Amino acid sequence: MNPIFEEHPHRRYNPLTDSWVLVSPHRAKRPWQGQVEKVAGDDRPAYDETCYLCPTNTRMNGEVNPDYQDVYIFNNDFAALLEDTPAHSFEEDELFKAETERGLGRVICFSPRHDLTVPEMEEVAIRKVVDAWIDEYLTLGGKDFINYVQIFENKGFVMGCSNPHPHGQIWASSSVPDEPMKKQIAQLKYWQKNQRSLLADYIEKELIKQERVLFENEHFVALVPYWAVWPFETMIVPKRKMARISDMTDAEKDAFANAYKRLTVRYDNLFETSFPYSAGVHQAPTDGEAHDEWHWHFVFYPPLLRSATVKKFMVGYEMLANPQRDITAEKSAAVLRALSEIHYKTK
Amino acid sequence: MNPIFEEHPHRRYNPLTDSWVLVSPHRAKRPWQGQVEKVAGDDRPAYDETCYLCPTNTRMNGEVNPDYQDVYIFNNDFAALLEDTPAHSFEEDELFKAETERGLGRVICFSPRHDLTVPEMEEVAIRKVVDAWIDEYLTLGGKDFINYVQIFENKGFVMGCSNPHPHGQIWASSSVPDEPMKKQIAQLKYWQKNQRSLLADYIEKELIKQERVLFENEHFVALVPYWAVWPFETMIVPKRKMARISDMTDAEKDAFANAYKRLTVRYDNLFETSFPYSAGVHQAPTDGEAHDEWHWHFVFYPPLLRSATVKKFMVGYEMLANPQRDITAEKSAAVLRALSEIHYKTK
Ligand SMILES: O=P(O)(O)O[C@H]1O[C@H](CO)[C@@H](O)[C@H](O)[C@H]1O
Ligand SMILES: O=P(O)(O)O[C@H]1O[C@H](CO)[C@@H](O)[C@H](O)[C@H]1O
Repeated sequence: MNPIFEEHPHRRYNPLTDSWVLVSPHRAKRPWQGQVEKVAGDDRPAYDETCYLCPTNTRMNGEVNPDYQDVYIFNNDFAALLEDTPAHSFEEDELFKAETERGLGRVICFSPRHDLTVPEMEEVAIRKVVDAWIDEYLTLGGKDFINYVQIFENKGFVMGCSNPHPHGQIWASSSVPDEPMKKQIAQLKYWQKNQRSLLADYIEKELIKQERVLFENEHFVALVPYWAVWPFETMIVPKRKMARISDMTDAEKDAFANAYKRLTVRYDNLFETSFPYSAGVHQAPTDGEAHDEWHWHFVFYPPLLRSATVKKFMVGYEMLANPQRDITAEKSAAVLRALSEIHYKTK
Repeated sequence: MNPIFEEHPHRRYNPLTDSWVLVSPHRAKRPWQGQVEKVAGDDRPAYDETCYLCPTNTRMNGEVNPDYQDVYIFNNDFAALLEDTPAHSFEEDELFKAETERGLGRVICFSPRHDLTVPEMEEVAIRKVVDAWIDEYLTLGGKDFINYVQIFENKGFVMGCSNPHPHGQIWASSSVPDEPMKKQIAQLKYWQKNQRSLLADYIEKELIKQERVLFENEHFVALVPYWAVWPFETMIVPKRKMARISDMTDAEKDAFANAYKRLTVRYDNLFETSFPYSAGVHQAPTDGEAHDEWHWHFVFYPPLLRSATVKKFMVGYEMLANPQRDITAEKSAAVLRALSEIHYKTK
């Protein structure tokens, strides 16, 4: 890394979304008198009778959860997208445009254990989550009215998660949402120009530079992207170009579970707290096209900046002008790289 | 509003930024067991000796604030952008691109009174803030290395504000940031096609529809935009096309202060709390061009959704896929329209 960028305010380009991030390396030492987050207690029971995600409990709509043993999936009782939405589109002129959006929402309990989170689960158990995602991607994506399947997890109260039971969500929609669409456009442009995958070229170069790579295994690389916005933002990228998670071999599925666990353990170890984030998969739409340009990847957007209780606020300037960060991607990578892969609670 | 869109999930188009928002009208009644925000106490003294923005106090860098009587402006002691940044740009290939960013940061105290906020200030005092903004826009924008001047305010701890003393910020930069750049591109396209201002056409139609307009005065319209993302997002738009705030006549400056106060009073009355938001101006860059396409406007992005303590989280789906809201813009407008313009504290 050029020392100029290590020290001075600069902008970096994100070639995946065609956008910029403002980096202010000198600003990390600013004093903080603002909001301090509550830390969720670490004393959750393995089973909580008031939790609507625990096995055998009754949900708000009267349904009873089975006594599930690993992963459990059901339709979101309060889904933002619904299957029985009538088709309708409206375009008064170029200023007033709307269209109904058909889709559905699913909830995936990662484990029957109320007290666990991904970094505390066994790799074999995480692998079952991966299998469930692939299953859902294929089943939902196979429906004629579904063209995109967004798999994600909100972890921690600070990320708007309303239940600490380990779970993720899937929102599947007829339209391709804005963010994956940006990535598709950028990847397609690169593919057409170079006949190569943007992300394959990118990780090849990152593996040589070794400035932002956290670790790799046989099939995946975990790194802080050059254009990271969130203080400890990371990506897990498959070494082989694959458009979708369902393209993984068995060995790759295991390797992903391995990378997912190792990365989230490092996260928990960073501030010795259950590390909050929103995370999920970006992959090819399920619109029936081949999408040779797509190289799927998994992103983590964690808000914490200085400690377990002080987060980065993406507010005024970030909302109105441009995302901004206070430490460089290289600094964050160095911090995450130095951490142990043994969970602090088990030490 | 077509009843289909009142009831069913749909997407709306934002012609100013060329993006979409997912609207889920049926979802407003979802139960909430998640994070509850702290409400800042309303018992602040008029002067706080520990506040580094109050008159006569000493700031962290040893400087002493004057005994100012209305507005006070100084260079941000921890600015994200700095004047003495060396010029440097780097482009290894299309994947690794960065450039240093020269700029500066300013802090504007809106009032010497520690216990006030905009909705509690007199219109004549707010007018002085507007004058200060115009002054700063012209002075900073006049520097050869400044091409964009972002004026904004983070209000409330939930918006990352670290000091309740009424104040805003200005970040001025050599580059035009992403968000105003999107609006510039859209407005230019519309201008070239129609020889008219996108926003002038838009508010003309909104004034006929009267579904999202909150109020107007002689020179400004306050409304919830058709494409609002935040639950109670609003805009104040000048009726006359002006590229920049410095184009305002005296009467327009007064009228803006009037609209700014009336809107923020309604906000405070909504949950009878000091209503948090990020807000600011979008206007023409200071790059020496005429920018006939630009129609400046003031936006408010407030996070609260259900009460003084439950906000909308823009997390997993919103970060990875698409902004999403649970109530329609029309519902929010109806709620805000029904509120009094007399501040609840003075009733
Ligand atoms: O500049 P402040 O008030 O210290 O900081 C606040 O506003 C900035 C500009 O929106 C943000 O980057 C910070 O995350 C936020 O805490
Ligand atoms: O679906 P949940 O967990 O009730 O809700 C959470 O995730 C959603 C998807 O990111 C967000 O829209 C909500 O704001 C958030 O609270």
